[in-house]
Amino acid sequence: MTFERVDSRTEWEGRIARVRVDTVRFDDGEEAEREVVEHPGAVAIVAHDGERLWMVRQPREPVGEQGLLELPAGKLEEEGEDAETTAKRELAEEIGKGARTWQRLTSFYTTPGFADEEMHVYLATDLYDEEAESEENERIEIVEVPLDDLDDVIRENRDSKTLVGLLWFRSYCR
Amino acid sequence: MTFERVDSRTEWEGRIARVRVDTVRFDDGEEAEREVVEHPGAVAIVAHDGERLWMVRQPREPVGEQGLLELPAGKLEEEGEDAETTAKRELAEEIGKGARTWQRLTSFYTTPGFADEEMHVYLATDLYDEEAESEENERIEIVEVPLDDLDDVIRENRDSKTLVGLLWFRSYCR
Repeated sequence: MTFERVDSRTEWEGRIARVRVDTVRFDDGEEAEREVVEHPGAVAIVAHDGERLWMVRQPREPVGEQGLLELPAGKLEEEGEDAETTAKRELAEEIGKGARTWQRLTSFYTTPGFADEEMHVYLATDLYDEEAESEENERIEIVEVPLDDLDDVIRENRDSKTLVGLLWFRSYCR
Repeated sequence: MTFERVDSRTEWEGRIARVRVDTVRFDDGEEAEREVVEHPGAVAIVAHDGERLWMVRQPREPVGEQGLLELPAGKLEEEGEDAETTAKRELAEEIGKGARTWQRLTSFYTTPGFADEEMHVYLATDLYDEEAESEENERIEIVEVPLDDLDDVIRENRDSKTLVGLLWFRSYCR
């Protein structure tokens, strides 16, 4: 069973989000409409110095969380921006670090049923202090997590990209 | 830093998706608008019989994937439906199985920056054949994965709930 997109129209456009409705035709001839939230894609970074993971805690208003513990992360500035470039910028902006070693761990869709966001997860090691050019978000708190606490953090975590990144790190990078 | 929601209005409503714009006030007095895609929540199921995992492959039009390999999954029928009830229904509908043993592994937000979807992941074991009441989606193909292939499936997988479920299973359930 395959499909092709035969029509697409933008139905709503906010300051950040945009919703389009696609018409797709399956190879049995049936057509269907699909509502798609458009997203430029994003990155998340598992950053550690051998003893501690560097994470962030921030309010997440859409889910009513006053302080969700997450990997440093951020949106691609535009569709097609190189994800590693985004990752380097976000690591500097969110935790004030650069990294000499970068490795892409995995890429995945966060919610393939209703949004086109693709998430790229990187491992950043050999960290050094680096001041960010852009201004800091005052609502982001930096959290240092001892690597010994990794399992506890995973068991309590509630964010998809963070769970994938930390579980992947635990499984394949230690 | 905390916030409260002081206003909320629905801006767009499709057949499935709905977008609202919230006004939130932070405890420093600043107000901000947040665009939120509303979602009733969902479940995903790691189902295995000791030798094989039961997964599904289906077209995911929003991300242009002709056949994305995923855990059996589905939406809560309404906000507040018991997630384990959803999981039992979806396992029967998607792979034609029931399970005598159910365990909730974790719950998380898929995209806390722009949608309120919460995902609940279950482990289902002691499987038995069970016919679903509702009609089957002809575009869903059942895929049996030998447990010995778990790492290969994880490394190639591109779906967030599936990665969390399989990595969690690999880390804590074997």
